[in-house]
Amino acid sequence: MKKTEGGVTAAKGFFAAAAAAGIKYKDRMDMAMLYSDVPCVAAGTFTTNVVKAAPVLWDQRLVAESDFAQAVVVNAGIANACTGKEGMDYCERTVEKAAEVLNIPSHAVFVASTGVIGNQLPIDRICAGVEALGKKLSDDLAGGHDAALAIMTTDTHEKEVAVQFEAEGGVVTVGGMCKGSGMIHPNMCTMLSFVTTDMAISKELLQEALSEDVKDTYNMVSVDGDTSTNDTCLVLANGKAGNKKVLEKNEDYNKFKQALNYVNENLAKMMAGDGEGATALFEVKVVHAEDKEQAVALSKSVVSSNLTKAAIYGHDANWGRILCALGYSGVQFDPEKVDLFFESEADRIQIMKDGVAANYSEEKATKILSQKEVRAIVDMKMGEASATAWGCDLTYDYVKINADYRS
Amino acid sequence: MKKTEGGVTAAKGFFAAAAAAGIKYKDRMDMAMLYSDVPCVAAGTFTTNVVKAAPVLWDQRLVAESDFAQAVVVNAGIANACTGKEGMDYCERTVEKAAEVLNIPSHAVFVASTGVIGNQLPIDRICAGVEALGKKLSDDLAGGHDAALAIMTTDTHEKEVAVQFEAEGGVVTVGGMCKGSGMIHPNMCTMLSFVTTDMAISKELLQEALSEDVKDTYNMVSVDGDTSTNDTCLVLANGKAGNKKVLEKNEDYNKFKQALNYVNENLAKMMAGDGEGATALFEVKVVHAEDKEQAVALSKSVVSSNLTKAAIYGHDANWGRILCALGYSGVQFDPEKVDLFFESEADRIQIMKDGVAANYSEEKATKILSQKEVRAIVDMKMGEASATAWGCDLTYDYVKINADYRS
Repeated sequence: MKKTEGGVTAAKGFFAAAAAAGIKYKDRMDMAMLYSDVPCVAAGTFTTNVVKAAPVLWDQRLVAESDFAQAVVVNAGIANACTGKEGMDYCERTVEKAAEVLNIPSHAVFVASTGVIGNQLPIDRICAGVEALGKKLSDDLAGGHDAALAIMTTDTHEKEVAVQFEAEGGVVTVGGMCKGSGMIHPNMCTMLSFVTTDMAISKELLQEALSEDVKDTYNMVSVDGDTSTNDTCLVLANGKAGNKKVLEKNEDYNKFKQALNYVNENLAKMMAGDGEGATALFEVKVVHAEDKEQAVALSKSVVSSNLTKAAIYGHDANWGRILCALGYSGVQFDPEKVDLFFESEADRIQIMKDGVAANYSEEKATKILSQKEVRAIVDMKMGEASATAWGCDLTYDYVKINADYRS
Repeated sequence: MKKTEGGVTAAKGFFAAAAAAGIKYKDRMDMAMLYSDVPCVAAGTFTTNVVKAAPVLWDQRLVAESDFAQAVVVNAGIANACTGKEGMDYCERTVEKAAEVLNIPSHAVFVASTGVIGNQLPIDRICAGVEALGKKLSDDLAGGHDAALAIMTTDTHEKEVAVQFEAEGGVVTVGGMCKGSGMIHPNMCTMLSFVTTDMAISKELLQEALSEDVKDTYNMVSVDGDTSTNDTCLVLANGKAGNKKVLEKNEDYNKFKQALNYVNENLAKMMAGDGEGATALFEVKVVHAEDKEQAVALSKSVVSSNLTKAAIYGHDANWGRILCALGYSGVQFDPEKVDLFFESEADRIQIMKDGVAANYSEEKATKILSQKEVRAIVDMKMGEASATAWGCDLTYDYVKINADYRS
């Protein structure tokens, strides 16, 4: 497996485009289209929030009932959530317009929206946007790059990644893009994420690979504890790599899972590091937990703790907050067995030994906590399970961005 | 029942004092002592955090095993949490010193600490503080007021309240003080709270009344989602009111429960309104839920949502975030039935009707959201249960306070 250039148009047969449709923002691209020139099998995971946006309801039905898919229409600015029947109607009109423009059936078109909850989409501008996008579709890397830019809301940069590996009969590419900065606390998959691959693979195995992988990637990210109404992760596989179609869990399936994990994990980390107002990516690795479920609960509890996140922003080795967050995670453990380390790319320091302060240098701890990527490693000394969660620091800018998001 | 002056020394026979012991802060009172001149029955509720501070472990044992109590020693600045055997030893030395100074058994002395986790107490200064406190004990209201000031950490003001009611045989007073501003997300009771009463009541009924009441008061407060290691709520009853001792759930018991609820709810609301960095008290009332458990989960999910809290700070009627937070509470409901109102003391406005935006004035909504006390009322239209939760807005100052709390 090797990293390659680009994002959603890195794999063969995928096209993308972006347009400034004037949904909410001025003078910036705010709609994107993704298209495969041959039918794809599709897999998806969606928000567990009881309040689901109209496009989530549409996509869920499509993943469940449609044999193939060929396009995705995305808009930023308005989430089309809490919009009732009118919102669902606009969703369907978007899909029908795209089906007409691309000359494909409407049940082959996904939609996704992100932005303010509760406002209705300006459907005329959406339809005009779809028309413009249809004419601009391009299979070069720039097309994918533009799409990654267009789907951003409070994101400060686009997020895309791609890898390649050799399968029996052909080289397979897996590439993706995502957006996500606030209202991020996963439960299923979080934010909008689109992954494309030219792998030939059955729909069932594609869904299984995705469903397993989101648990270790998107579901381990938290920016602010708020699970969005619009979380959507879609994977489209069009088979153009020419590989021997994967119909069972063979070596190629495992290679694909590795590639998918690489793409998803990288997108998830980009999202955490670009959390609203964030100055640092905060990674929490829990090792030697009794079981996976326990390791997940512990690592997510720490990465979601406001107090811990504020301390990371202050470069303050206030390790008591980490132990406190472990303590309210719901997991039973002996506090007097826990070890804690802080780590940056260059340095590592033991902060806590057997539940009490280790003899460490505050100066060195502060230096480690001042890096762009900070890792806390928690050793529970209970078993063999581990998990990693990703988040970011809590800053003035998070408050600023969200105190008046709608204006 | 009528409100009266003072706090923990409002009831007969209770004495308090404060001292500047130099635990962590300079030039301010940071230790308090509470004392009854006759033995009390005592009830307590404590943090559910697996990581429990040494004083919590001590007090839990005392409530369970000791027939009576007579004093409480409190320090601010250092939490004596995650301090291992040394911390437990310091706890015992504090208690022994107080027992000696007050000439009472050590199993009649509670301790409570609040402040930085992980540091050891300066035990010599603590013992000197206990000695000074013993000499200053006073049963006037000023003694209780000083104690309420001394137990503060990042609190911006002291918190005390008292009420009186007539019971058979005597007038009963219930008064209390608490501190709490950050690391506040209850699970049992949160923060440090001390309530005194001269009611004659059995230990069993005192504990039952408290355990029931914390569910509707302290457990409904959230400042930041972080459940502390030190949460402690103690009630001492010394019987000096001369009322006919309450041994069953009679009318006097019910009057006492009302008084206790008044004291606890007021202290809880003061704490929420004085949440770290807060500019407003944010109250979330959920009505017409199917059952109490559901109403509690829904109201706490909204009051704990960072995004909602940041919107309150921005006086922004971003109601989608409230519906979103209801949606990830774990409760199943139909979003298309939910109504939402914002309310201040003077005004009320309907923001959402049947899950979509009502036709409301943004100007009026902003005016309501600019008040010092803001209430959101959520009507689920499912049943007859309701619950109220209290929190505060999320501000720059919360981040500032917590980015470098230890310095």
